[in-house]
Amino acid sequence: MYRYDYHHRVRYRECDRMGVVYHTHYVDYFEAARTEALREMGLAYKSLEDSGIIMPVVDLSVRYRRPARYDDELVITSMFDAVPSSRVNIGYEVRRKNEKTTLVTGEVTLCFVDQQRNRPVAAPGHVRELFEVALKNSQ
Amino acid sequence: MYRYDYHHRVRYRECDRMGVVYHTHYVDYFEAARTEALREMGLAYKSLEDSGIIMPVVDLSVRYRRPARYDDELVITSMFDAVPSSRVNIGYEVRRKNEKTTLVTGEVTLCFVDQQRNRPVAAPGHVRELFEVALKNSQ
Amino acid sequence: MYRYDYHHRVRYRECDRMGVVYHTHYVDYFEAARTEALREMGLAYKSLEDSGIIMPVVDLSVRYRRPARYDDELVITSMFDAVPSSRVNIGYEVRRKNEKTTLVTGEVTLCFVDQQRNRPVAAPGHVRELFEVALKNSQ
Amino acid sequence: MYRYDYHHRVRYRECDRMGVVYHTHYVDYFEAARTEALREMGLAYKSLEDSGIIMPVVDLSVRYRRPARYDDELVITSMFDAVPSSRVNIGYEVRRKNEKTTLVTGEVTLCFVDQQRNRPVAAPGHVRELFEVALKNSQ
Repeated sequence: MYRYDYHHRVRYRECDRMGVVYHTHYVDYFEAARTEALREMGLAYKSLEDSGIIMPVVDLSVRYRRPARYDDELVITSMFDAVPSSRVNIGYEVRRKNEKTTLVTGEVTLCFVDQQRNRPVAAPGHVRELFEVALKNSQ
Repeated sequence: MYRYDYHHRVRYRECDRMGVVYHTHYVDYFEAARTEALREMGLAYKSLEDSGIIMPVVDLSVRYRRPARYDDELVITSMFDAVPSSRVNIGYEVRRKNEKTTLVTGEVTLCFVDQQRNRPVAAPGHVRELFEVALKNSQ
Repeated sequence: MYRYDYHHRVRYRECDRMGVVYHTHYVDYFEAARTEALREMGLAYKSLEDSGIIMPVVDLSVRYRRPARYDDELVITSMFDAVPSSRVNIGYEVRRKNEKTTLVTGEVTLCFVDQQRNRPVAAPGHVRELFEVALKNSQ
Repeated sequence: MYRYDYHHRVRYRECDRMGVVYHTHYVDYFEAARTEALREMGLAYKSLEDSGIIMPVVDLSVRYRRPARYDDELVITSMFDAVPSSRVNIGYEVRRKNEKTTLVTGEVTLCFVDQQRNRPVAAPGHVRELFEVALKNSQ
């Protein structure tokens, strides 16, 4: 299992009138966490997109267990355990820094699309290799 | 099955650099669609909250099939087929106005929480009644 | 002075932990209000952009006088009193429906840019004409 | 002049279909930059709010000079040169990391409000002192 921790301070605009993070924003946290997890592996999503391959989200699920609050320091962990063929599944866990309690979990599935032809394609070879290396190093 | 159609014009800020609605925003569409569906049934969410009962989202899933684009007129249909006990499941379908193709589907589960005691509670009687009437009238 | 009223129901995600609309969202309200004001005049912003002219915001100012709250029905009035040459100034007033008290005022300046050459240009002739007609009809 | 640099990586959801940061998001950047600038001075905004003093935004202005793009590493500088009496003025400059060109400038005015009485008040003594120390140390 490859795991990468992304840190985020909860912003004022992200909290609702109950004083907790509004549920939508966790999906944004996942996106930032995923981007930095891929960058850490050597895959800058911007470069992939500049090369003509985009990765749209096709499936999303989130389970909200406990609320996060204004100014909390959150750790959003991205996780995967397989090399992508046509799709990538990435799991997420959200905790407060230095706490063990899981606040929110989620999973996002992305596919690979050739932007010019607007068609799904297999994961490019260099992307598969970066996942392989990341998984090998995380054992 | 109770169904309610909420209309939304896609805004500039909702589209990403691929020119399509960024995936997060559908979760916001669901919230607006749900609020208006409940209002149509006679349940103003604000009144419920003012009475001390809040309805946090506990589960969310979204399947993205086809993209929506800037300035599209979307119809977001909220659906349910059961009277809530401790939880409410609401399904969603997103289409363009006057088109049959489903762009996005989703499901949201909410629970009922007594705000002061911060504990889950059963659906209040008048809420159950409003769901019963809505389901009866939609047959 | 041309005036156009856009209606918006305040959404849950737009309210902060003080229970009022978070200040950023008024800028989004202005964008939606402006788009519908232009559409009412016969100018679909999407068509303009499809023709290669984009209208980026160059200046923005907002004065926050009184708060709006969850579920409020707001009226956002867009106003202008001149035909654009190279820039357009649009003023805004936000009120609750059926109330006279102004909650928020603002002003946005946009310019015209030829997207392909990435250079500022004068307002296209047909845009100037639509503004002239709108101003004439509003006298 | 007290200056504090806040770093932000431009996220996918913040870019519009022109591939640039949508203008609204700079106002969110200002809020995050301001919060961290105050924290650096010893003033945690959350603590202030917990003590019953809130700081709503009363005036906002932004000038957009040049666009920022997806994945840019931005530096948002918060600046002030006076100890607040009843209001605080904070200026902002946005640049790319390691570049001198200013992309966006702005100014935000906040006031102090006693939350329980819902009335404007003078800046609390300990807040004034923190500003004095910060200004002294930045000379």
